[in-house]
Amino acid sequence: MIELEHLKKLSHTSPSKIVLLVIDGLGGLPHPQTGKTELESAQKPNLDSIAKQSLCGMIDPVSPGITPGSAPGHLALFGYDPVKYAIGRGVLEALGIDLELKPDDIAARCNFCTIDDRGIITDRRAGRIPTDKNTELCHLLNSIKIDGAEISATTVKEHRFVLIIQGEGFSPEVSESDPQRVGLAPRNVEALHPQAQRTAEIANEFASKAKSLLRDETPANMVLMRGFSRYPDIPTMSRIYQLHPAAIAVYPMYRGLARLAGMQIVTTGESITEQLQSLHRHYTDYDFFFVHFKKTDSRGEDGDFEAKVQAIEELDDALPDMLSLAPDVLIITGDHSTPATLAMHSWHPVPFMLRSQWCYPDAVAEFSERACHAGGMGRFPAVEIMSLAMANALKLDKFGA
Amino acid sequence: MIELEHLKKLSHTSPSKIVLLVIDGLGGLPHPQTGKTELESAQKPNLDSIAKQSLCGMIDPVSPGITPGSAPGHLALFGYDPVKYAIGRGVLEALGIDLELKPDDIAARCNFCTIDDRGIITDRRAGRIPTDKNTELCHLLNSIKIDGAEISATTVKEHRFVLIIQGEGFSPEVSESDPQRVGLAPRNVEALHPQAQRTAEIANEFASKAKSLLRDETPANMVLMRGFSRYPDIPTMSRIYQLHPAAIAVYPMYRGLARLAGMQIVTTGESITEQLQSLHRHYTDYDFFFVHFKKTDSRGEDGDFEAKVQAIEELDDALPDMLSLAPDVLIITGDHSTPATLAMHSWHPVPFMLRSQWCYPDAVAEFSERACHAGGMGRFPAVEIMSLAMANALKLDKFGA
Repeated sequence: MIELEHLKKLSHTSPSKIVLLVIDGLGGLPHPQTGKTELESAQKPNLDSIAKQSLCGMIDPVSPGITPGSAPGHLALFGYDPVKYAIGRGVLEALGIDLELKPDDIAARCNFCTIDDRGIITDRRAGRIPTDKNTELCHLLNSIKIDGAEISATTVKEHRFVLIIQGEGFSPEVSESDPQRVGLAPRNVEALHPQAQRTAEIANEFASKAKSLLRDETPANMVLMRGFSRYPDIPTMSRIYQLHPAAIAVYPMYRGLARLAGMQIVTTGESITEQLQSLHRHYTDYDFFFVHFKKTDSRGEDGDFEAKVQAIEELDDALPDMLSLAPDVLIITGDHSTPATLAMHSWHPVPFMLRSQWCYPDAVAEFSERACHAGGMGRFPAVEIMSLAMANALKLDKFGA
Repeated sequence: MIELEHLKKLSHTSPSKIVLLVIDGLGGLPHPQTGKTELESAQKPNLDSIAKQSLCGMIDPVSPGITPGSAPGHLALFGYDPVKYAIGRGVLEALGIDLELKPDDIAARCNFCTIDDRGIITDRRAGRIPTDKNTELCHLLNSIKIDGAEISATTVKEHRFVLIIQGEGFSPEVSESDPQRVGLAPRNVEALHPQAQRTAEIANEFASKAKSLLRDETPANMVLMRGFSRYPDIPTMSRIYQLHPAAIAVYPMYRGLARLAGMQIVTTGESITEQLQSLHRHYTDYDFFFVHFKKTDSRGEDGDFEAKVQAIEELDDALPDMLSLAPDVLIITGDHSTPATLAMHSWHPVPFMLRSQWCYPDAVAEFSERACHAGGMGRFPAVEIMSLAMANALKLDKFGA
């Protein structure tokens, strides 16, 4: 199997441009009434026209039957084995609020919760307190001092916040304090490795001091911690592919994932039109662009079939502006499926197309699940997309003599 | 995944015959005017007729996006993982001139070059000296004596020669003396592993003595060495598959690759007609035949679309002579694509067909990229071909009880 170390030896820089447009949660399932998926129901002349000129297929983000979270879904598209490069929950939560982590920082995903006077959890989410209240409580928690460590709590939303532990010699290999159900007391954090002893002590000291500080609050009078993790050691796309990559994403978590892969973050507006304007503005500055379109996933998760169809149509309307750039390699796919009928991420494969001067076009004439099944790439792992992109951009040397 | 060790346990000998016809650089891309590939443009009634009776598909020699050199392309067809069994450049150069290497020999790919009076390289190829001159200079180099090692320089062509270091306890893990650009002095060869210390010393002593011997020559007054390597430890096809395999190839490098896999080399003429006559002559002597047709790749690399089409037609004309043998298993495919429009090896998958009494025929009615995409094998790794061949030859036992 070709590994990143091989790709690193084969990659070279060149002026050609690669655009990777990720339509989040792209794949769908047929509507019970019409028998057509979201993609099949949408009016999308631009996507269909690109499909006619492209090499098409269906990707498995992780492997058949596995429903990917946003992190593995995107890491695979960026060329990283999503099983090997796992991202901890704490780190992902930090990325999601644009927190920049240093390599030694420990991040945990935390909840404000409610405990009764015996210390038993009665609500793991403290009635989903307003975000303003969360901010006020995090301010309180940030007064906590612990010897040999810097502690900071940052609001995410409602009852959720991120705890960062900074200092020397810490380890994320500790257990979680969140018992994941009511009727139990928060657990003591235990070291899972001898090197994590001090980290566990700090986490427990934080919980104990937080309990004192919050004792008069209602309903958020305690904290729960889980997903202790550290920034993963990922070789950047510039190290592997000699690329100068940029991300154009509206939501912080996708910017965070792009930053993990070593991409520069381009400032952009909230709409796909503004995102594509940013692409135009920075087109000469980079040679790889990740453009992230979120709305399809959100509407799919809402279970709103018609709104997901409209999101696809909105994207399609905006495409001519990107097509005028005529990137040497254009890839359009998704990070996973989010069928509106399931109203959640799913394990289904995702339509894929790649257009370049050197791709072998197949007979696919429409961008949809059913049509892409018959594409020239057949069904293949998403992690292979980057090799294909690099090859079609003529940025990859011959393997072996 | 099935490994060679499993296949070794499952394989048994039998009288059935397998013929593997490799059409070098077979796969192509559409001609900009006609929209048809080389295969689609050729008149090839025999290939099309075989396709109708065959199980078809598209192979990835290494993996999607990876352009294979000739060595990985062929090793995959012979059933060896082309990433695991990497062939060094020096060994490949030796194979290319029919040099037989012993397991301990170290081979390096060398250039005669030009240096100025300060020792700086001014031409890495010494103006591509005539091959006759090269032979004369190699004769000179072969007078070099080094304690504890046998040294030999053998002409390849123009400025290129192969250096073989024979003796005990050497290692190919040394750096290269070729700095890969002019304006620098040849580098000292350094050991990359403690065991390679003596090898590095010998290489440096060779370079130093070569410099003295060549000092009055113009323009070839120095040598550059790279690709130090040793014969890879590859289990032969007879050990794994219990086959008695033979190769019918015109070009030395392909004979060398076949020898690596443990094939016997059958003497043959230069044309495909003569190659197939050799097949007839030796048909009872072996049970596996690798027949190599080179011209398609050469014309593809020339960028000569029409000549590649003619090469395919020339091959097709010769086929009835082979078909009269009615091999139990006939496989026709390529080691990689060489689209004339790209004029180089490429990453595109390669048409494949297998005909046997026991293959499941699909609806493919033509031997071409587009038609084979819809074949019963779909798209699959070339390394799986040998298992399929053995199965269809009824030479493979059941796996597990």
